[in-house]
Amino acid sequence: MVIVMGPEATGNDLASILALVEAAGVEAFVSRGVQRTIVGLVGDVTQLDQGNLRGMPGVRDVVRVSTPYKLVSRENHPERSTVHVGGVPIGPDTVTLIAGPCAVETPQQTLEAALMARKAGATLLRGGAFKPRTSPYAFQGLGEAGLRILAEVREETGLPVVTEVVDAHDVDLVASYADMLQVGTRNAQNFALLQAVGAAGRPVMLKRGMSATIEEWLMAAEYIAQRGNLDIVLCERGIRTFETATRNTLDVSAVPVAQRLSHLPVIVDPSHSGGHRDLVLPLTRAAIGAGADGVIIDVHAHPEQALVDGPQALVDGDLELLAGVMRDFPPLLGRTPAGTLTA
Amino acid sequence: MVIVMGPEATGNDLASILALVEAAGVEAFVSRGVQRTIVGLVGDVTQLDQGNLRGMPGVRDVVRVSTPYKLVSRENHPERSTVHVGGVPIGPDTVTLIAGPCAVETPQQTLEAALMARKAGATLLRGGAFKPRTSPYAFQGLGEAGLRILAEVREETGLPVVTEVVDAHDVDLVASYADMLQVGTRNAQNFALLQAVGAAGRPVMLKRGMSATIEEWLMAAEYIAQRGNLDIVLCERGIRTFETATRNTLDVSAVPVAQRLSHLPVIVDPSHSGGHRDLVLPLTRAAIGAGADGVIIDVHAHPEQALVDGPQALVDGDLELLAGVMRDFPPLLGRTPAGTLTA
Amino acid sequence: MVIVMGPEATGNDLASILALVEAAGVEAFVSRGVQRTIVGLVGDVTQLDQGNLRGMPGVRDVVRVSTPYKLVSRENHPERSTVHVGGVPIGPDTVTLIAGPCAVETPQQTLEAALMARKAGATLLRGGAFKPRTSPYAFQGLGEAGLRILAEVREETGLPVVTEVVDAHDVDLVASYADMLQVGTRNAQNFALLQAVGAAGRPVMLKRGMSATIEEWLMAAEYIAQRGNLDIVLCERGIRTFETATRNTLDVSAVPVAQRLSHLPVIVDPSHSGGHRDLVLPLTRAAIGAGADGVIIDVHAHPEQALVDGPQALVDGDLELLAGVMRDFPPLLGRTPAGTLTA
Amino acid sequence: MVIVMGPEATGNDLASILALVEAAGVEAFVSRGVQRTIVGLVGDVTQLDQGNLRGMPGVRDVVRVSTPYKLVSRENHPERSTVHVGGVPIGPDTVTLIAGPCAVETPQQTLEAALMARKAGATLLRGGAFKPRTSPYAFQGLGEAGLRILAEVREETGLPVVTEVVDAHDVDLVASYADMLQVGTRNAQNFALLQAVGAAGRPVMLKRGMSATIEEWLMAAEYIAQRGNLDIVLCERGIRTFETATRNTLDVSAVPVAQRLSHLPVIVDPSHSGGHRDLVLPLTRAAIGAGADGVIIDVHAHPEQALVDGPQALVDGDLELLAGVMRDFPPLLGRTPAGTLTA
Repeated sequence: MVIVMGPEATGNDLASILALVEAAGVEAFVSRGVQRTIVGLVGDVTQLDQGNLRGMPGVRDVVRVSTPYKLVSRENHPERSTVHVGGVPIGPDTVTLIAGPCAVETPQQTLEAALMARKAGATLLRGGAFKPRTSPYAFQGLGEAGLRILAEVREETGLPVVTEVVDAHDVDLVASYADMLQVGTRNAQNFALLQAVGAAGRPVMLKRGMSATIEEWLMAAEYIAQRGNLDIVLCERGIRTFETATRNTLDVSAVPVAQRLSHLPVIVDPSHSGGHRDLVLPLTRAAIGAGADGVIIDVHAHPEQALVDGPQALVDGDLELLAGVMRDFPPLLGRTPAGTLTA
Repeated sequence: MVIVMGPEATGNDLASILALVEAAGVEAFVSRGVQRTIVGLVGDVTQLDQGNLRGMPGVRDVVRVSTPYKLVSRENHPERSTVHVGGVPIGPDTVTLIAGPCAVETPQQTLEAALMARKAGATLLRGGAFKPRTSPYAFQGLGEAGLRILAEVREETGLPVVTEVVDAHDVDLVASYADMLQVGTRNAQNFALLQAVGAAGRPVMLKRGMSATIEEWLMAAEYIAQRGNLDIVLCERGIRTFETATRNTLDVSAVPVAQRLSHLPVIVDPSHSGGHRDLVLPLTRAAIGAGADGVIIDVHAHPEQALVDGPQALVDGDLELLAGVMRDFPPLLGRTPAGTLTA
Repeated sequence: MVIVMGPEATGNDLASILALVEAAGVEAFVSRGVQRTIVGLVGDVTQLDQGNLRGMPGVRDVVRVSTPYKLVSRENHPERSTVHVGGVPIGPDTVTLIAGPCAVETPQQTLEAALMARKAGATLLRGGAFKPRTSPYAFQGLGEAGLRILAEVREETGLPVVTEVVDAHDVDLVASYADMLQVGTRNAQNFALLQAVGAAGRPVMLKRGMSATIEEWLMAAEYIAQRGNLDIVLCERGIRTFETATRNTLDVSAVPVAQRLSHLPVIVDPSHSGGHRDLVLPLTRAAIGAGADGVIIDVHAHPEQALVDGPQALVDGDLELLAGVMRDFPPLLGRTPAGTLTA
Repeated sequence: MVIVMGPEATGNDLASILALVEAAGVEAFVSRGVQRTIVGLVGDVTQLDQGNLRGMPGVRDVVRVSTPYKLVSRENHPERSTVHVGGVPIGPDTVTLIAGPCAVETPQQTLEAALMARKAGATLLRGGAFKPRTSPYAFQGLGEAGLRILAEVREETGLPVVTEVVDAHDVDLVASYADMLQVGTRNAQNFALLQAVGAAGRPVMLKRGMSATIEEWLMAAEYIAQRGNLDIVLCERGIRTFETATRNTLDVSAVPVAQRLSHLPVIVDPSHSGGHRDLVLPLTRAAIGAGADGVIIDVHAHPEQALVDGPQALVDGDLELLAGVMRDFPPLLGRTPAGTLTA
């Protein structure tokens, strides 16, 4: 941590800072200039509150120079991690396709979507039984009945299941059906939920909050990791900006940035980022190009009848193109298409 | 709802739209132009999915023309509402001051802050026992012990208590101590929590999500209202923008806009918006000027020792100025300072 | 400036930094820790490129600790400045009302608007002869004919004229008619224009860029100041955010923040911020509450016929309310209403 | 255009609207509902001001349903365009690499960078002689001396030159040296400059404003097109958001969206988007994956000595990787690498 003091800071102001810092067992180095005095702190600064230091007399700024997350940081874990979901790897050597319906509606619709997913090269099935919706009047998902459908479709297709949990007290229930728990963008700072999934004994896919910085996203992952679960996959799904031409703005740069800061795998959701079918393939190629470890994509056999997010779901006619992308692009980045591993 | 079709739309495309719309019992009016065909829908469109319509062939855009929230809308309830918290009004005739410590730390600190609050004209006490923190390594609040402290301080000072709840399953516990439940910005779309506070039989203060549009904020309020609770106070607390000079960007225009769209009272949190003590008074005056029905402010006797958000808390020397603002500004807007009601 | 090096930095990496820094005549203080090494730089760092330092091996971050603007900074000029426009003060002791039509359309419309402005307490007349418009098909202003109208209306009303200039090569022309030159939000980083108005011998009103940080806004002012002109008034006019309910998001906190960082006066444009007539009075009161040194407001006798921005112009019926705000609020902040100075 | 009226609208309110609309020669279709009345306008609505209609009594909203740009729209020009710069194509069949130094500093540095660019597959040389800089104290470019250096390097390398112009009155000078004129992000709404480059008889590269919507970007292009110049290449270079981990947020979705709305070629600037060398290759691959018609990249032989933007320039060791990307990715999208056309 570095404390910056202005020209108005008195000797007493500096002495107060030094006393406080040294009481916390931290070593301080003072560089005195005419306009600014810089106090560099070396040691374990976790006991010092950056905000409170900033409020002290003479202090202009307090700058943190180390990362606030530890377990998910790449600094102490330089090797990038691979997370296995029902045996399927997500990590630096592969590009994994997760696909399925946005929401589970009926057994038949879910099975059709799962077969479409598999045809496109998916090795994991996505599908929502609990849906967080902006409007209380919108379809909120089938709940446990939806989880049962997902488990049946897993039986029939062999695809492990990724599904969202929205309430800390549903975590055990969802974990009893799912191979991977998803935490959605609206719950990216629902800390009770993060802690609960951290203790559930299942891999977790953590979507980025729609207005979360990359640092806040990694702090949310740290909440999960702190409960003993490091099987976390980060998912970039678009951030909120001034641009309204797309549902969200896919922050494709977040992929390499998060991979440099953290050892966790990073995947991309091109369906929810763009919000439109026509954008799914371009954004999938962009994601793989940026180095994503996988993508998660909505598919639906009859999107015009979908209860949730129909306009962004791929339809049957798109699958061959998607399969081609999943097969041809990963090798250019030295990766194995995950869909070929089971072959 | 209005459906806009492009020049490429065929007669069949239009017929499909009309069939679907009429099946939903909605009347359609068609205006045909060279570049665009406009289909105006009149009737109850809640059964029609805007997104799915947008995905149909020939459709360029689908525009909603009525508000998606009902119970909190001012359209069916033109009179602005007053919410009473332990007898204290928040509404169009007054300007209410809610003040207290950001976090409850000790009985003494909480009592000191409550006395400071009262001195400045506060008629409600704020204080957090459950604190949602970005870092898992930060102080998370005292939990139920904190709630007991708040109840004791209420006894001593007579100030009803406003406190945050962060987990749906703590709602009954918190409601058993608190006069008003607060839902924080990170939980602004935690729908399980919104529904739980809607059923708790206590007034609710709903902070705006840090990246929520005003419409999304009102939809979150609708979740609470739908469970039978219309004692909701909206709280603007700053939004996330590109500007980093302040902790958040206070969207002061949201006050008159939300008051025009909804009958619910709207207050402002100048402490968390600005994130700095020096900004609290200017932003308080700005909030009252914009027509806020109240403000909620952090105070702390020893902010340099505060466990949470010390730098934004007002200290003893600021209270007289705050009291002056709370006394002198409301009359200019035809309102009674809430602090004088008990005199 | 502070250079932060990571644990991977070698002795050679540090030595390279020190060599480069010392070659620039800057003193370096090194604080070595396990995770980070901090190099504090003391002296004139203007010769060092922050970006290039950041690109050197072992460097994690480079933090600037002094302000990059000098002439407009309050650090070397603690007293807040008053700028005089045709004898009318804008500064810390008053609250000045600048009003008039968004665009000059006809002599009669301009005169009517000027009389409305004066009735509301305005002491300066605004009006655009050169209009920067998003669409090339929209009305672009009357040009020099508009300037002549403004000069005539100044004759009739005694109100000095504030008007926009959009091209560096029109500066002399506009300055020959205007009492104050306005630089608009779209030209906030048109450096050729900033330099030209800096040399024109007229006070300048500098609108904030719609996505400019406060620091960038002050750097733009520094461009003007550097040409010898310190008669600059900063104007906050709303920034671009995700919220679409208002035309822009008025960043009311920018008023006290900019006043703390710079000695220049800061005013607010509530018309262009909100984009709607109903928001002008609430935002005017908010601006004065936040400490603004003035406001600039659109008025129009027949806004439904206005060629530009009709919906945000105040009409005759609003003027008495505005006059009341301009008279009653400033005294609460220890300021004289500018409109009473001429009385 | 669609006008939406609320339940409070009277018959007179509707009649006023209809009178105004019909006076403009536009046909109106009225759909009356209980909550809303919808007036669909069919015909040439360019004479109607959306804002003024919105200000009329009873009107809730006015929605534009056709695009405000004409010449650059794909609606009337379904075929995507190819722009030729000194004989080099930028368009749907190729992926063009434009590379060179951010700023021209010396003849030797420029030549070295041009040779690096060519080695990586570049067929066009970029380089700035006029540099718009946030600080007036930063290096502003060599001006005409820089243009002469660029012309000499073109002689030696055969690479046509792309260079920025920042002032309308320099357009002829710059056009006398350059093969393509660049308009930078800070001038994206400098309409005088846009009109001047529209009349200069040279292809133009138009960078997106850092807070411009895609629609505003296309309107800026329309300014150029309206002066008779349709040889315009759009360049996405990152937008301003809340995220500070990257210099800007590359809006990679803007590539397919702009290509759907406009027939103009769209390229990407991965150097300025990310602001860091390590991000250039991932973002280049992402851009090509999204369908970009080219990329523009900074290279510098000695970036630590660069006067502008050193940390984002590629160095010699990166070139082979870049050449590989430019060679291997385009064929997967059915495109020819532009660098092989001259072979």
